[in-house]
Amino acid sequence: MTATKGLEGVVATTSGISSIIDDTLTYVGYNIDDLTENASFEEIIYLLWHGKLPTQSELNELKQQLTEESKLPKEVLDHFKMYPIGDVHPMAALRSAVSLLGLYDDEADVMDEGANYRKAIRLQAKMPAIVAAFARVRKGLEPVEPRSDLSFAANFLYMLNGTEPDAIAVEAIDKALILHADHELNASTFTARVCVATLSDVYSGVTSAIGALKGPLHGGANEQVMKMLTEIGSVDRVDSVIREKLANKEKIMGFGHRVYRKGDPRAKHLREMSSKLTGLTGEPHWYEMSTKIEEIVTSEKGLPPNVDFYSASVYHSLGIDHDLFTPIFAVSRVSGWLAHILEQYANNRLIRPRAQYTGPGMQKYVPINERN
Amino acid sequence: MTATKGLEGVVATTSGISSIIDDTLTYVGYNIDDLTENASFEEIIYLLWHGKLPTQSELNELKQQLTEESKLPKEVLDHFKMYPIGDVHPMAALRSAVSLLGLYDDEADVMDEGANYRKAIRLQAKMPAIVAAFARVRKGLEPVEPRSDLSFAANFLYMLNGTEPDAIAVEAIDKALILHADHELNASTFTARVCVATLSDVYSGVTSAIGALKGPLHGGANEQVMKMLTEIGSVDRVDSVIREKLANKEKIMGFGHRVYRKGDPRAKHLREMSSKLTGLTGEPHWYEMSTKIEEIVTSEKGLPPNVDFYSASVYHSLGIDHDLFTPIFAVSRVSGWLAHILEQYANNRLIRPRAQYTGPGMQKYVPINERN
Ligand SMILES: CC(C)(COP(=O)(O)OP(=O)(O)OC[C@H]1O[C@@H](n2cnc3c(N)ncnc32)[C@H](O)[C@@H]1OP(=O)(O)O)[C@@H](O)C(=O)NCCC(=O)NCCS
Ligand SMILES: CC(C)(COP(=O)(O)OP(=O)(O)OC[C@H]1O[C@@H](n2cnc3c(N)ncnc32)[C@H](O)[C@@H]1OP(=O)(O)O)[C@@H](O)C(=O)NCCC(=O)NCCS
Repeated sequence: MTATKGLEGVVATTSGISSIIDDTLTYVGYNIDDLTENASFEEIIYLLWHGKLPTQSELNELKQQLTEESKLPKEVLDHFKMYPIGDVHPMAALRSAVSLLGLYDDEADVMDEGANYRKAIRLQAKMPAIVAAFARVRKGLEPVEPRSDLSFAANFLYMLNGTEPDAIAVEAIDKALILHADHELNASTFTARVCVATLSDVYSGVTSAIGALKGPLHGGANEQVMKMLTEIGSVDRVDSVIREKLANKEKIMGFGHRVYRKGDPRAKHLREMSSKLTGLTGEPHWYEMSTKIEEIVTSEKGLPPNVDFYSASVYHSLGIDHDLFTPIFAVSRVSGWLAHILEQYANNRLIRPRAQYTGPGMQKYVPINERN
Repeated sequence: MTATKGLEGVVATTSGISSIIDDTLTYVGYNIDDLTENASFEEIIYLLWHGKLPTQSELNELKQQLTEESKLPKEVLDHFKMYPIGDVHPMAALRSAVSLLGLYDDEADVMDEGANYRKAIRLQAKMPAIVAAFARVRKGLEPVEPRSDLSFAANFLYMLNGTEPDAIAVEAIDKALILHADHELNASTFTARVCVATLSDVYSGVTSAIGALKGPLHGGANEQVMKMLTEIGSVDRVDSVIREKLANKEKIMGFGHRVYRKGDPRAKHLREMSSKLTGLTGEPHWYEMSTKIEEIVTSEKGLPPNVDFYSASVYHSLGIDHDLFTPIFAVSRVSGWLAHILEQYANNRLIRPRAQYTGPGMQKYVPINERN
């Protein structure tokens, strides 16, 4: 028995949801380039959950359900107010709030297909409401309820800011949500599948996935990218800072990927958006720093940027707090988590690998006064 | 690329913590039979975290830390009071409370070894306090603080019942805690490792593990066993009920195991305790029903009982609410989760396997009014 570190290249499950083949990412067979160009995030949710794009009436029904189910239990809103002020990370708040949501859902432990699908709708609807409400409550503002006439992306910005967002911001968020929606057996999705393969409930699965996404090697990277850009501060400092980090064998956040070798197909869309939005806000240096970092890391390490690199300057340009970048990733990826959870239930087996034991050989218990 | 369903037999990591070799379970090289006979649960915690049994002064220090750190933040206690009355599962409450604990720990996101070890102590100390406090608050009782002169096992019962437990109960809980402490790459431990391999924090890892343990194919089985015993109700009904379940291809909870083929070495200890305790309480039928079920399932399916089968009648005999059986498992297993989380950090790589894609081939986006 020899361990494959990080399960690299090990196939853990079959899945009909998304595929990465030759550095191309598809959702249910649709290239993400095609979807980013043409679809809305609500269509992607439907696609991931039903394996087909919706008709107009199917889409209308889903949109209506998502608005109806977005209301949060009063207790979940209230409990934000007991948080210690200032230093709660929104991903920890989201993890706690989603776990709590389970307590207010009478169907939390009902395991039939219908109930599990209804929980999927509820979670997809409530995640942006949680992120927005937390972000407002910590600033002393009241939460804002969503509007039934706005899209999912527009509603998220509306609940966050309390004002109707402009079309450019809505388009940027909508595309970002599409690009982050699913990604085969990424670490958070895999966490969720391992969790629910014990036949645990949907809330447990999503809570565990949020915990995994929080890590800086995964979704947490986008916040770290912004921290790095802020620390560098200007284009002329990029060269020295990045080369020093590389010399110190530090990882450059937003680069590298377990699966992609030539490059992450999502990055180009976010780069384009970053170029456009940093121009519009009159802060093109965020984009210029980013492309310069890309140049150096690609030529020095052969590592192309991943989805988290340019999304940082995109979200910053939309005026979003830096610690909300990973929660936005979660608001999108929960659509994929839920698709994978439903797929796991439909054809379940406990996920239980082995460890290669490397500890001491057989020992005999020695009374405590004879130990050293 | 072909998937190994449930990762059966796939070696996902090296580990020096516990081993299962030829149906023998060891913690750091000590046979669990030897440890169950001789050690206390506090010694096991130390063993799993340090790779050696403690000296007396090391043990004293650990015990003192566990008592000192058992106090819960007032907000975590208060939030139990906002729960909907009656129908919150204690595992969902525990999952939420542990997630919330992270918000009240200034070191939650500090990733050095010292801080991670301190978080391990805090979580090990606070888990029994959470389970006991929740169990009391839902009955309208006040939480009870632990006493520094009691062992971990005794304190757990003391916090639960508010009265000093007798020696037989303490011994039973102590042994049960030892037997459940670690189990190589079981599903909840693996969930925790996948979660924290993103370099997410200890609270995220333990929260995700609680979610996984909750499932009936894993820790949730002990509660289901008690439900089955209660439904059967008397020894003369065992035969017909169990044979009917088997004929309907229902899984009999508390039987079977991914790794053990001949039998789970933990089961015999719990069987012995069940025999003794059900005798003492004057309810030997729980034990008699259990042995009869074992006879049938073993002869009909060749499946021996696992750790969850006899633990059910043991906990019931100690007067513990049936929905607290899985939380007790968690109070013990968190010692193993924490050992594995610390081990993962010490030699980390993102755990990110692949999926074998089985969905539709390449498709082209079609405008919504042309779909059906
Ligand atoms: C994504 C990631 C976790 C993939 O990890 P992986 O497949 O386990 O790759 P490894 O960590 O084993 O890295 C392989 C080698 O590339 C190097 N490397 C990988 N990513 C790097 C980065 N971002 N910066 C610098 N070096 C990097 C590693 O140091 C290692 O070098 P070595 O062989 O000299 O030790 C990794 O690339 C990373 O940590 N990137 C930064 C975090 C990030 O952006 N995550 C978001 C992913 S969408
Ligand atoms: C523990 C467990 C999840 C291991 O699962 P696994 O290795 O994936 O085994 P599988 O579910 O693939 O089972 C293999 C076969 O044995 C049967 N089987 C396994 N456990 C069974 C049980 N408890 N009762 C009846 N049949 C069982 C399965 O139905 C399957 O039969 P099939 O080949 O005819 O379909 C499984 O034995 C189980 O569900 N047990 C009951 C729950 C339990 O006690 N869990 C606590 C474990 S500590």
